[in-house]
Amino acid sequence: MPKPGTPVMDGFVDFILGLELASLPPAVIAAAGRSMTDWVGTAIRGSREPLAEAIGRVIAASGGEPQATVLGRRARTSALLASLANGAQSHALDFDDTHLPSVVHGSAPVAPVVLALGEWQHLTGADALAAFIAGFEVETRIGRVIGAKLTERGWHATATLGHFGAAAAAGRLLHLNAGQLAHALGIAGTQATGLLASFGTMSKPLHPGKAAMNGLLAALLAREGFTGSMAMLDGPGGLSETYLGISDLSAAVEDFGKRWQLLDNSTKFYAACHLVHATVDAARGIRASGPLAADAIERVECRVHPLVLKAANQRNPQTDLEAKFSIGFCAAIALLRGDAGEAEFNAASIADPDVARVMARVTPEPDPAMPVVAAHMTVRLTDGRVLEQHVSAARGTAQNPPSHDDVEEKFLRLAAVVLPAERVSGLVAALRGLVELPDVGEIATLAAG
Amino acid sequence: MPKPGTPVMDGFVDFILGLELASLPPAVIAAAGRSMTDWVGTAIRGSREPLAEAIGRVIAASGGEPQATVLGRRARTSALLASLANGAQSHALDFDDTHLPSVVHGSAPVAPVVLALGEWQHLTGADALAAFIAGFEVETRIGRVIGAKLTERGWHATATLGHFGAAAAAGRLLHLNAGQLAHALGIAGTQATGLLASFGTMSKPLHPGKAAMNGLLAALLAREGFTGSMAMLDGPGGLSETYLGISDLSAAVEDFGKRWQLLDNSTKFYAACHLVHATVDAARGIRASGPLAADAIERVECRVHPLVLKAANQRNPQTDLEAKFSIGFCAAIALLRGDAGEAEFNAASIADPDVARVMARVTPEPDPAMPVVAAHMTVRLTDGRVLEQHVSAARGTAQNPPSHDDVEEKFLRLAAVVLPAERVSGLVAALRGLVELPDVGEIATLAAG
Repeated sequence: MPKPGTPVMDGFVDFILGLELASLPPAVIAAAGRSMTDWVGTAIRGSREPLAEAIGRVIAASGGEPQATVLGRRARTSALLASLANGAQSHALDFDDTHLPSVVHGSAPVAPVVLALGEWQHLTGADALAAFIAGFEVETRIGRVIGAKLTERGWHATATLGHFGAAAAAGRLLHLNAGQLAHALGIAGTQATGLLASFGTMSKPLHPGKAAMNGLLAALLAREGFTGSMAMLDGPGGLSETYLGISDLSAAVEDFGKRWQLLDNSTKFYAACHLVHATVDAARGIRASGPLAADAIERVECRVHPLVLKAANQRNPQTDLEAKFSIGFCAAIALLRGDAGEAEFNAASIADPDVARVMARVTPEPDPAMPVVAAHMTVRLTDGRVLEQHVSAARGTAQNPPSHDDVEEKFLRLAAVVLPAERVSGLVAALRGLVELPDVGEIATLAAG
Repeated sequence: MPKPGTPVMDGFVDFILGLELASLPPAVIAAAGRSMTDWVGTAIRGSREPLAEAIGRVIAASGGEPQATVLGRRARTSALLASLANGAQSHALDFDDTHLPSVVHGSAPVAPVVLALGEWQHLTGADALAAFIAGFEVETRIGRVIGAKLTERGWHATATLGHFGAAAAAGRLLHLNAGQLAHALGIAGTQATGLLASFGTMSKPLHPGKAAMNGLLAALLAREGFTGSMAMLDGPGGLSETYLGISDLSAAVEDFGKRWQLLDNSTKFYAACHLVHATVDAARGIRASGPLAADAIERVECRVHPLVLKAANQRNPQTDLEAKFSIGFCAAIALLRGDAGEAEFNAASIADPDVARVMARVTPEPDPAMPVVAAHMTVRLTDGRVLEQHVSAARGTAQNPPSHDDVEEKFLRLAAVVLPAERVSGLVAALRGLVELPDVGEIATLAAG
């Protein structure tokens, strides 16, 4: 059969349909399992955010066949609408995983589709995991080439490129043939956008939900014979050329089977901008030797890469969102409370005079020689002592990857806010054994509110 | 109350919420009525196209509260999914209206939302018409400023800008307040794209369906407190700046109440590229004096604006789509059969040796002095006679607007393919009296398959 698309399109189609779990490196499967676990936790926890209420009411009014569960809520609806809700919920706290080299939150657009189709079609955990890996790799491989450029020009790469990841995962799970899958990627691409202008509004987390829903819609339509552009990826007038003037995406389809983007994925253990995580690690390391009173701290020096300060040096944060992008706030809260989890980002913490006092004493210093994921902290105490901590790579980054236990610990904390203990432990077990799970619907059932 | 957005955002919000049918020029209301009538006809007829089958099967699987009718089909589904289907169906034949100055098919993204909400909420025809006008004006006013630029850079302006039209109409019908409506436009904009690369595939007609659904989703979410960017229209990082580098949209909100885009709308009476309509008119005028045999025609000279030939000079069309963009085919078929309606664009016509013979004798000549909507045709017959026809503005353009009767005649032809005669005549009456219709649902019920 002749190949349906451009070389890049065909390369991806072959990869998506040809991927076999049995021949993957175990580290890739383990990374995918951690990502799915982390994603389910963030989506469950996100169900308690105001945006989940709003989406929930729209879904309740619209109805739909009870194909898939909205995590943490009592609703089952169509796979399309469940993907929308779960994708948005999982990004609501900006606490989901990030593939830094592509600037893409990789799980949020793909996992909702995998879970919704898995529940609806009673798929195995192994099938779900393989589709998740396929989708994640596609969007982040494209993102390696154009993710930074998209971001620079004003697009939210997670939103834009997530469409391809979602369509890839859905296409594989719906057993599309090569031609249909190429059409699905074309239909997905013509819907793919999402602007940085939405940052700071609920539309930002809506983006991966929309990418998930649109990508699934593309695959469902392609299965019914619907057509899209074969040139959508790298052809003339395709997304990359139209948005960026870049039509050479050949690097995105190189070294299949040799390089796995999932191994470069980062898990967030703090509910703040990824770039301040090393600073939080350093502060936690310093505090590990014993509690510190605000008055005991004379000065906090943080040496970090200049990019960290460009992105996250809000000097006087007034809202949670600003606090998440304030290295001073994050350093202060971690020194005083030993954490920077979702519980630390609220009005009370921001108003806390102790936090404000320490924050005022934080002096960040740019150092181009530091890696972006590193930090060096020096705390000078009023009693003359000097405490120092160097972090070469923040916890959760590709250079310092978490264990499944680490991810589970975060999962437990997030899920416990929403679900009773026995459901949480059931989920932990099901997610740990995902690759052998006979029916992915079990996760959805356990995660329902 | 302080205004929520940028000056352009606030200008549109005031316009959308402040529009009163009673104070509109009667010509604007009449134009809106013709557009709605024409749109319903194209959406009914489109239900018989393959893309409608595909979307229909996806909708059937997904389900949804029976809020709104898919025209020409037996399905009722959620207003969201009905908007998707009806928007796509109405553009399936590329036979719906076009607002040439903005390069936007104005009804296709807006009318589906108006009809779906009208049926679901039992709204009056007057409410529906006012919302339709608001949506149409918003998208085409933005299109006046950036529609051509979007097209030039690779976006399908109908898809991209249709999102704002749909959100505007939905926001008005859902009684959003000013702040909510601004958020709705922000949420709509961050979903707004659609690429020219999709032309020639089913994704092209999907575009206005998706714009309708996305715009409605934006308004439904905004009603529940969801937030979007206030800068989406003309602010930093907004759609226009990100896509085109243009941030001055002030011309889009000038002269409210003085200039009406609906008065510049064009109705298609031929199922071909808008730019060849004047040529078809000329050929029909020539043929009006009596039938012409293929052998009697020695030479056909067509003088048109160069743009016409740039867009629609396919020399050897092999498919319907190519034939629609072939001035030679359109001239030949109109000379031989007296029309260029949807019945003339098929494999049989393309294979007809008489058509091929005349087509080969058509010599188009570019003439920059001709308006784009004009054509001059000279037919030289083998018996030595010369027949000439000049058309200064094609039938259906703003310079030669149709009567309601003209639009009804087209409607009858399209609807009769799908619906029984009594339903068609019921629809004709309901649409003619739209402004006084107590419940828009009547149209949907009559138009159901």
